[in-house]
Amino acid sequence: MYTTDLKKTEEIDITPDKMKEKGRVTVRWLLGEPEGAPNFEMRYFSLTGDVATDWHSHDWEHEVFIVAGKGKCRSEDGERDLKPGDAVFVASGEQHHFICGGEKLDFICVVPRGTRNI
Amino acid sequence: MYTTDLKKTEEIDITPDKMKEKGRVTVRWLLGEPEGAPNFEMRYFSLTGDVATDWHSHDWEHEVFIVAGKGKCRSEDGERDLKPGDAVFVASGEQHHFICGGEKLDFICVVPRGTRNI
Repeated sequence: MYTTDLKKTEEIDITPDKMKEKGRVTVRWLLGEPEGAPNFEMRYFSLTGDVATDWHSHDWEHEVFIVAGKGKCRSEDGERDLKPGDAVFVASGEQHHFICGGEKLDFICVVPRGTRNI
Repeated sequence: MYTTDLKKTEEIDITPDKMKEKGRVTVRWLLGEPEGAPNFEMRYFSLTGDVATDWHSHDWEHEVFIVAGKGKCRSEDGERDLKPGDAVFVASGEQHHFICGGEKLDFICVVPRGTRNI
């Protein structure tokens, strides 16, 4: 068994350049390859202010759970409002981004192992 | 993109028989095979009262994130206190259970696809 405390993990700033004056996007890796996870990795994203993650796609899926705050997920499919307790599945290859809708948007995002540095 | 609201998913009662007078253990499947997820499935567990999940092991891992409440995870390794923001990795084959430590313990638990009915 391995346990970790969100606040003790490294907070990595991934704010897109064009948004650096508007707010902040960070990610913390909670569980994954370094902790012995064989199949998938769990991250914690935190968006504060008037920001969004990059509009992008990749060859793997996202499974997301909204922990706090409010916002939206936009994809090729359209746009959905998000609140704590909502879950989102974004398919491999689907263009998407997450948008902070107020003070903050915090969520868990699980991805397949092996996608950390690509 | 697929989204769901925790409160709209089916709440499945999995309270162990010997605990039915002490509280309740429920699981809600948020994202998985039926929603097109190819690799892993996300569930939401809620323990209320003086209850715990069964002491058990299985041939797959857990990746857990504590959403609300407090409690413990006990495994062959020992026991760890849990609070919101903590993450837990339980390895394949490791005996473990989750214990409610007060009014409630709510957590996300991600497992590999294909383990739902075994």
